[in-house]
Amino acid sequence: MPKIVDHEERRAEIVAATMRVIERLGLDGATVREIAQEAGLSRSVLAHYFTNKAQILVTAHQTAFAAVRDRIAAQRAEIGDPVELLRVALEEAVPVDARRMLEANIDVAFWEFARHDPELRAIRLDSHLQAVEMWESMARDVQAAGSARDGIDVEAFGVETQLVIDGTSLQAVLFPEAMPPERQLAVVATHLRRVLRQ
Amino acid sequence: MPKIVDHEERRAEIVAATMRVIERLGLDGATVREIAQEAGLSRSVLAHYFTNKAQILVTAHQTAFAAVRDRIAAQRAEIGDPVELLRVALEEAVPVDARRMLEANIDVAFWEFARHDPELRAIRLDSHLQAVEMWESMARDVQAAGSARDGIDVEAFGVETQLVIDGTSLQAVLFPEAMPPERQLAVVATHLRRVLRQ
Repeated sequence: MPKIVDHEERRAEIVAATMRVIERLGLDGATVREIAQEAGLSRSVLAHYFTNKAQILVTAHQTAFAAVRDRIAAQRAEIGDPVELLRVALEEAVPVDARRMLEANIDVAFWEFARHDPELRAIRLDSHLQAVEMWESMARDVQAAGSARDGIDVEAFGVETQLVIDGTSLQAVLFPEAMPPERQLAVVATHLRRVLRQ
Repeated sequence: MPKIVDHEERRAEIVAATMRVIERLGLDGATVREIAQEAGLSRSVLAHYFTNKAQILVTAHQTAFAAVRDRIAAQRAEIGDPVELLRVALEEAVPVDARRMLEANIDVAFWEFARHDPELRAIRLDSHLQAVEMWESMARDVQAAGSARDGIDVEAFGVETQLVIDGTSLQAVLFPEAMPPERQLAVVATHLRRVLRQ
């Protein structure tokens, strides 16, 4: 089925072109026209893949979310100590460098669209619940290793971790002067200490 | 100067009408036309006060922010114990009921506009810094009363408190099924424990 292979490959190229355009022009500049030009495709060919801003944003969200998830999965495969893994994963999830700031910008923009569109909201809720579950499972590993504070509620910790990351991302995007990288790292370090045995 | 008094009074009436329209129709339905009708004014009279959506939103933000600040100031005047005051103020700042959910919706919508508009961003940054300072000062009172955990960084606690409230508001607005009132109260209770001597 060579046609399906072509479709998948082209889709991957278009996603890569989309992320390059967002990086260069910001989300507001990432129009169907700009993405077609970056990917070297006509707008009518691109229309098979994207027809509007919401679809561009869904692709950007899923790409950025998968990138964070894959980086954390790679760390999970490498780092044996669950406390160290949780520390590294928390630092991976906040926008301390340009790449992660781009991901945070995509996320904040996605919230805006999700507030107005039930389908986008459902997509974002799904990502949210996956993230909460990942944090919860990391906290369970810390607990199983005997490193957690007595009586910690790992389910609540999962919810609160994503809340801290969302709040940090929002403030870093809107008020970078008040939420610089060193402040972000202090926030996640404090959050990590909450789960650990003293 | 009766003209100035009229202007101030009319402004207050228009702000009240704006909040009633937002309550009834949501932010998206709060147009200059609807607000004029609610206030019983012609659109040309209203145009002296509001000319666009951004100005409506600034008024709604400042009204909602002042409402939270005034409620907390009233509690501050009444509640002597700084730990109890901090607990009550944290519960006042999260959207556990319809009135506070309206304020949270206004806030999330304001972030969207602030991301695109430097003037609105500056207004929102000012509110943010005032809120951070208020939480910091309440934590100092807890410390002065001898109720704080040893070595607590009250400045960091101020920043983190607003971050927890922003994250809770965002998730309650976007994912009310995942952030119901009882979860919000658990989040702020956990946050409060972080500052207290065990």
